[in-house]
Amino acid sequence: MSKYWSNIIKKIEPYVPGEQPQDKHFIKLNTNENPYPPSEKVIRAIKNAANEDLRLYPDPTCNSLKKTVADYYNLKKEQIFVGNGSDEILAFSFLAFFNPGDTIFFPDITYDFYQVYASLFRINYRKIPLDNNFNIPIEKFYEANDGIIIANPNSPTGIVIQVDLIENILKKNPNKIVIIDEAYIDFGGESSINLINKYPNILIIQSLSKSRSLAGLRIGIALGDKDLIEGISRVKNSINSYTVDRIALIAAEEAFKDQKYFEKIRNKIIIERDMISRKLRGLGFKVLDSKANFIFISHPEVHALQLFNELRENNILVRYFNQPRIDNFLRVSIGTDSDMEYFYSVLKDFLYNAPSMQK
Amino acid sequence: MSKYWSNIIKKIEPYVPGEQPQDKHFIKLNTNENPYPPSEKVIRAIKNAANEDLRLYPDPTCNSLKKTVADYYNLKKEQIFVGNGSDEILAFSFLAFFNPGDTIFFPDITYDFYQVYASLFRINYRKIPLDNNFNIPIEKFYEANDGIIIANPNSPTGIVIQVDLIENILKKNPNKIVIIDEAYIDFGGESSINLINKYPNILIIQSLSKSRSLAGLRIGIALGDKDLIEGISRVKNSINSYTVDRIALIAAEEAFKDQKYFEKIRNKIIIERDMISRKLRGLGFKVLDSKANFIFISHPEVHALQLFNELRENNILVRYFNQPRIDNFLRVSIGTDSDMEYFYSVLKDFLYNAPSMQK
Repeated sequence: MSKYWSNIIKKIEPYVPGEQPQDKHFIKLNTNENPYPPSEKVIRAIKNAANEDLRLYPDPTCNSLKKTVADYYNLKKEQIFVGNGSDEILAFSFLAFFNPGDTIFFPDITYDFYQVYASLFRINYRKIPLDNNFNIPIEKFYEANDGIIIANPNSPTGIVIQVDLIENILKKNPNKIVIIDEAYIDFGGESSINLINKYPNILIIQSLSKSRSLAGLRIGIALGDKDLIEGISRVKNSINSYTVDRIALIAAEEAFKDQKYFEKIRNKIIIERDMISRKLRGLGFKVLDSKANFIFISHPEVHALQLFNELRENNILVRYFNQPRIDNFLRVSIGTDSDMEYFYSVLKDFLYNAPSMQK
Repeated sequence: MSKYWSNIIKKIEPYVPGEQPQDKHFIKLNTNENPYPPSEKVIRAIKNAANEDLRLYPDPTCNSLKKTVADYYNLKKEQIFVGNGSDEILAFSFLAFFNPGDTIFFPDITYDFYQVYASLFRINYRKIPLDNNFNIPIEKFYEANDGIIIANPNSPTGIVIQVDLIENILKKNPNKIVIIDEAYIDFGGESSINLINKYPNILIIQSLSKSRSLAGLRIGIALGDKDLIEGISRVKNSINSYTVDRIALIAAEEAFKDQKYFEKIRNKIIIERDMISRKLRGLGFKVLDSKANFIFISHPEVHALQLFNELRENNILVRYFNQPRIDNFLRVSIGTDSDMEYFYSVLKDFLYNAPSMQK
């Protein structure tokens, strides 16, 4: 604490991301990275872009990447925003669409960063409790005060909402913004992108960190009505004219162009997720039905923290959230086949030898 | 304007950066980029870093780069912050150290972004007029309301303040933060870095965009007491855990390590700046005494806008600010020797043929 800090900075509890160890000691199943590398075409494009042009600022409008994304999703360039990771875009959106003192609605169990953004910008929030099966109670969002943010699929549960239910929320809140955080949408959920041309109040935020293996380069996109996109752009242009660097811009374009590779690794992860889910259920785990690149699991007999520690001792990092309702769960990112085989074998060995399970 | 926008976004006037044309048609002397490429070692390091690790998030603490910068400046790692360009760090600092309703002091003629940051975060500002020679009236900063930001050298004038005068400001404002924006310090000014261990209220912000030729990669640093650095980090961790990507982190480290190349190109720019300044004075120009990688010039007989247009017609971009007191000046970035020779010849030809100058 310093006397020079602003009041809000004295009070705020910043977001704490999953551990990012700098050695290669661990199998990282804790931050939902993609276990497969980016497309070879992306790597090649980056090498080509490592040239003298780096002395020049990037295009502040990200025009070329916006065109690529617009074509990909059959939207207009003016309906696309590009940012330095989807977290940054989320933060900008809170500033763009909410006033201090407004109230934003989001589920009680969701991405923890939402409440940090709200606090930073003095926006109030109301946490709507998930039901006992961790589903989002859609009707509770029919009369939102000043706006809504929902992760779809939700994190850390992985549970998806059908697009017609999202549409119901939009219809009921024509004068409020509805932000859908689709960071994990590529792993089996249906995107709400088709609602953009029908509803001026939906803003969709996606990430290239997960399904396109580019967490290390920081690229996120927002999609929505051009007025919403202009609102976020105004925030960006009041903070940093050039948020996305030359290398990231080029890499992102290539990532969108290599559809074959995208589908290949995405499908591998989906298959692996469904397989490990089945196998863990065979060990007695409760495994929520995930459409993301992670699963959310709990065991009836061994506490999540005990499993967390056992995994860590075996060089596997997973994510534990010390929060009401989910403090007996672990969130486990889907790794490669062999990562998950090893993960499974560690759990299996432990459970078969766990004191509480011995007959 | 959209009904979904927040009040502040409806009102704000975002910063407008210099034109960034995407073709190579122009000689760009408008955004203070370095005319020389980044070090070959930087380029090589980027190529090596284009690998499968890009699937992983970067180190959110930027630990290794912080160590490199700390060693370089003989500071501690805890005294260093790393961000996605110095603009982002400036924005974070406004949030970290000022409350809505506070008043920050800065010169009337300076980097236009300061007033945008203040407006965005509902901070008031007071513009202290430069004197008639565009010098900063130091005493007027001796009783600042809630804090101070000064660019040193100042932009767009290029005029530098001596470190002992900065120290006077610090002494007079022990309970207020004093931010020194040293984006252009490497071109001949003396940095205030040595004051950091003496004063807990100085925050210095630098950029790798100018003197290290990395505008395209977006890297800025802040240096100051560890409590100030922690304040900015709290903002960053409430907006985006990973602001600086893997490639930028590696490139920045290499840039700091190649001191020889840094000095070589920096010195070339200084020599070129001083030479073109002399030559322009020979053409009758008023050229302010610059310690930056740009010059600020005005001609007694031909209006700046007319010169601006003439240069543009000859494929040279420079910067014109349509603002009181400086609306008859041009800011001209220092290019390569041949850029500046061409720039000079265009002006010379024009002035010799300008109707107002013909006898």
